Amino acid sequence: MPECIFCSIIRGKKPATKVYEDDEVAVIMDIKPITAGHMLVIPKVHRELLTEMDDDSIKAVFSAAKKVGNALKKSKLRCRGINYLLADGAEAGQEVFHAHLHVIPRYRGDGFWLNMPSDYEKEMKPGELEKNAGKIRAAMGK
Amino acid sequence: MPECIFCSIIRGKKPATKVYEDDEVAVIMDIKPITAGHMLVIPKVHRELLTEMDDDSIKAVFSAAKKVGNALKKSKLRCRGINYLLADGAEAGQEVFHAHLHVIPRYRGDGFWLNMPSDYEKEMKPGELEKNAGKIRAAMGK
Repeated sequence: MPECIFCSIIRGKKPATKVYEDDEVAVIMDIKPITAGHMLVIPKVHRELLTEMDDDSIKAVFSAAKKVGNALKKSKLRCRGINYLLADGAEAGQEVFHAHLHVIPRYRGDGFWLNMPSDYEKEMKPGELEKNAGKIRAAMGK
Repeated sequence: MPECIFCSIIRGKKPATKVYEDDEVAVIMDIKPITAGHMLVIPKVHRELLTEMDDDSIKAVFSAAKKVGNALKKSKLRCRGINYLLADGAEAGQEVFHAHLHVIPRYRGDGFWLNMPSDYEKEMKPGELEKNAGKIRAAMGK
């Protein structure tokens, strides 16, 4: 089985453009940036999904994201806003199965946005929301 | 100045469908869900942006997201993957200016996805990545 590409990068066996690193995470430039400055925050311990990460590792990832997000805003790159995006699972668009957080600089006219389902603008009725919430609550702690 | 809608919900002054709550966060159903089960994780302390939140509050938000994400996957709602999305700033799509994390259930054919800029598929040259990384590094700690 070939080694996970992000694990290889973390061990220095594959090249990447690093922006930041500490004991828990590495932040690298995405080689196919959505906008210039698009970074990936990668936990050093291999976990496929956010839901498999422990809370301290989660904290490390999002604290690092905050750090590089702040830097982005103060940098000379175009950045008027930031999207932080994590995809858990292929159906959510995950392509590398080592959890990672996208940090994406945004500005007016950057050509990036969300394509919504056709029935999106509809507000859901409270009864229906409550029904769905009930299904999630019922599964908590399972 | 009208009170922030999320602060009103947290204080119980405005209705919302709550899924989970602890000392630091509330998780409510999005009234305009992208897919059924779409939730918002809201820190109780009012901060506009992720970059203004302290690290413990960030940890609380993403730990709660993990909790409800796990429940989503075990629930009877359709959920084969999850997107976690946070928008910092109007240019990033933020509509309520109290930081919040979207937890969005995903499944094949759900009609939701990212609309990429027209030049997206192009890999950036290492030299160019390094130039951008340098700009971000230069702004770290500023």
